[in-house]
Amino acid sequence: MQVSRGLEDVIIKTTSLTFIDGEKGILRYRGYDINDLMNASYEEVIYLMLYGDLPSRGELEEVKSIINESYDVPESVINVIFSLGRSCDPIGMMETAFGALASVYNPAWDKERDKETALKIIAKASTVTCNVMRAKEGLKPKVPEPSESYAKSFLRSSLDKEPDELEVKAMDNSLVLYTDHEVPASTTAGLVTASTLSDMYSCVTAALAALKGPLHGGAAEGAFNQFVDIGSPEKVEEWFSRKMEEKKRIMGFGHRVYKTYDPRAKIFKRLAESLSSRKPEAKTYFKIASKLDEVGEKHLSEKKLFPNTDFYSGILFYSMGFPVYMFTPIFALSRTLGWTSHFIEYVEEQHRLIRPRAAYVGAEKREFVPLEKRS
Amino acid sequence: MQVSRGLEDVIIKTTSLTFIDGEKGILRYRGYDINDLMNASYEEVIYLMLYGDLPSRGELEEVKSIINESYDVPESVINVIFSLGRSCDPIGMMETAFGALASVYNPAWDKERDKETALKIIAKASTVTCNVMRAKEGLKPKVPEPSESYAKSFLRSSLDKEPDELEVKAMDNSLVLYTDHEVPASTTAGLVTASTLSDMYSCVTAALAALKGPLHGGAAEGAFNQFVDIGSPEKVEEWFSRKMEEKKRIMGFGHRVYKTYDPRAKIFKRLAESLSSRKPEAKTYFKIASKLDEVGEKHLSEKKLFPNTDFYSGILFYSMGFPVYMFTPIFALSRTLGWTSHFIEYVEEQHRLIRPRAAYVGAEKREFVPLEKRS
Ligand SMILES: CC(C)(COP(=O)(O)OP(=O)(O)OC[C@H]1O[C@@H](n2cnc3c(N)ncnc32)[C@H](O)[C@@H]1OP(=O)(O)O)[C@@H](O)C(=O)NCCC(=O)NCCS
Ligand SMILES: CC(C)(COP(=O)(O)OP(=O)(O)OC[C@H]1O[C@@H](n2cnc3c(N)ncnc32)[C@H](O)[C@@H]1OP(=O)(O)O)[C@@H](O)C(=O)NCCC(=O)NCCS
Repeated sequence: MQVSRGLEDVIIKTTSLTFIDGEKGILRYRGYDINDLMNASYEEVIYLMLYGDLPSRGELEEVKSIINESYDVPESVINVIFSLGRSCDPIGMMETAFGALASVYNPAWDKERDKETALKIIAKASTVTCNVMRAKEGLKPKVPEPSESYAKSFLRSSLDKEPDELEVKAMDNSLVLYTDHEVPASTTAGLVTASTLSDMYSCVTAALAALKGPLHGGAAEGAFNQFVDIGSPEKVEEWFSRKMEEKKRIMGFGHRVYKTYDPRAKIFKRLAESLSSRKPEAKTYFKIASKLDEVGEKHLSEKKLFPNTDFYSGILFYSMGFPVYMFTPIFALSRTLGWTSHFIEYVEEQHRLIRPRAAYVGAEKREFVPLEKRS
Repeated sequence: MQVSRGLEDVIIKTTSLTFIDGEKGILRYRGYDINDLMNASYEEVIYLMLYGDLPSRGELEEVKSIINESYDVPESVINVIFSLGRSCDPIGMMETAFGALASVYNPAWDKERDKETALKIIAKASTVTCNVMRAKEGLKPKVPEPSESYAKSFLRSSLDKEPDELEVKAMDNSLVLYTDHEVPASTTAGLVTASTLSDMYSCVTAALAALKGPLHGGAAEGAFNQFVDIGSPEKVEEWFSRKMEEKKRIMGFGHRVYKTYDPRAKIFKRLAESLSSRKPEAKTYFKIASKLDEVGEKHLSEKKLFPNTDFYSGILFYSMGFPVYMFTPIFALSRTLGWTSHFIEYVEEQHRLIRPRAAYVGAEKREFVPLEKRS
């Protein structure tokens, strides 16, 4: 009766989606290196993940048009988002909205339609994410308007301004970087949900609930708050020593699978460096982060702890004008593609109810004593 | 690289909560046999699960008073339930409501307060469940009023009538029967969520999403619909043979762990028999179910498939006046206790991020070809 703590090294499914080499720091989607995919748009990666290959121009246009037609959500879904107060937790709000979408649509699994359902979910995720921000900012609801790109439509409707080319490209790259990472906790929670043949929206709801935690999607916010807390690059070393003494974890460091520098962190670092140069505080945060990266590497690399994907991403989103609370929702927005791709792969190709066991270590059989006779 | 299909026999945690002997058909909560616990109220079992022993009178009163004070939910939560249409899926509506509760409360894990958080969640689950029914029935919102028992308050506020003693006792027993079952899919989805240190409400949201599926909590509704579909006891054999020919599954039969008659099904059978005698159609459904049980046992017991907890429970709830769509929400209401007990046990005593692996079986490394050059 050996407990598999944290399900480390337990293999829950096979996949043709994402390959990770945690020792060498390699990440590929369907065989394509993550670095090469910085030359692809998010829509190309959507097609790649769901259909298996990079799209031709015609295939790409088809995907784009399904997405562009699917941004709208029922009024009740907008209402539930705006019913919640401005101080509400944004991922909780996304869970609420996806619960509402599940309530309304509740689609059955169907090989003929699952991929289209996923495309609709991906479009509606943009609407949900931008309206969570709009509700928290006290703005009016808005449905993303179709444009040349998913990234651009999302930026426009969230930030209420016309993004420039560099911003659109950085958002596109961010969406691709966060697209998938095999079976982290959020994907696993969604897979367990899919295994009962619950509907695809509910699977996303479960994944969101798991993403919310500070050890997972919450880490980008945690990492950024550290930079704010440190305040200036000179204070990094002292701050770091204090954290080590207090046996605190450094947010944005460490990973169950990567035992080397996360390849996504390298790319996010470049993007953050370029965009942060536009905003003085962002520039300072970037300097602090780079220094913490350096100091962390010196002291933590022997424990195989390196910056992960959430270390620099927050600085990038902050530089674009997003509030800190939006970092995890943007992660969720992008990961919706990875989640739905895994759910479909599991249900269509290798479905079985996921039902592990617990090892009982409690009391032996006890005699029941009625309330009147208990002392 | 062996895939653990459905995580069968993988041990995800230890537990002192629930013991199952799937060969002998034994189920115990904290050492007490499920049959003996039919003499305990749900509130006694709440105390037992969360605190480890059956309560004294004083301890029981304390738990009751915390619950009685915690039925209220923020107005926004009532609003999100009633924003959704009458045709919405009820478990989707519960996900929405729990997402909203997570958005508003978002409690951090804290050993000093976790059990009280669980008690509040259990109280608010009653409010959510009864208002999902009220919204779907087109009634006005209502918060359960404190009474001698949780079961009674729930029945009153859902059915808008004074339940008699037999109904209250049957509801109490049902809540105890559905309280916990170690780590089925819903509990597992919630545990994965808890492992990221997401808040306890979000963990319940994830569990609800998984419970929704027809292979899990959705089975009680599936089982009952079969009885309706069959129509009369004489038609059972023919119907069953047809299903076997079509290679269809019998809902309410089979279980990953029980390889014999589910001890809960035996108790639900007795309860359903007694309550169904009050309503002609319910009586017919009970006769059909008993016949299907008999026929199923003759043909499926060699495959170790027997009626499970969801086989008879629907007839009981139907006899009490609940619509079919409420069977899974009532299961969820009761299981909230088992879920939160497992989450607390995991986070406080054996926490680690749950992060399994997937075995990559996809394309080898591929060269990226830009869109312009793709054919
Ligand atoms: C991601 C994470 C949960 C993976 O954890 P895991 O595989 O379960 O690793 P463990 O919790 O078993 O930790 C292994 C060791 O590394 C240490 N460690 C792990 N992450 C650490 C961090 N960020 N800072 C400092 N020490 C860390 C642990 O304390 C433990 O040390 P010990 O063996 O001396 O007790 C973990 O690295 C973490 O909490 N990181 C911070 C949160 C974060 O950035 N998450 C986003 C991931 S994309
Ligand atoms: C609960 C359940 C998902 C457990 O499934 P599992 O442990 O993964 O079992 P498997 O899917 O591997 O099935 C094992 C075999 O029993 C058969 N089987 C399982 N449940 C069956 C059912 N309800 N009716 C007919 N055959 C069934 C399977 O077809 C399979 O047969 P095979 O080996 O000839 O292919 C399954 O029994 C089921 O679907 N039951 C109906 C839904 C239900 O009542 N769920 C509530 C559970 S509390």
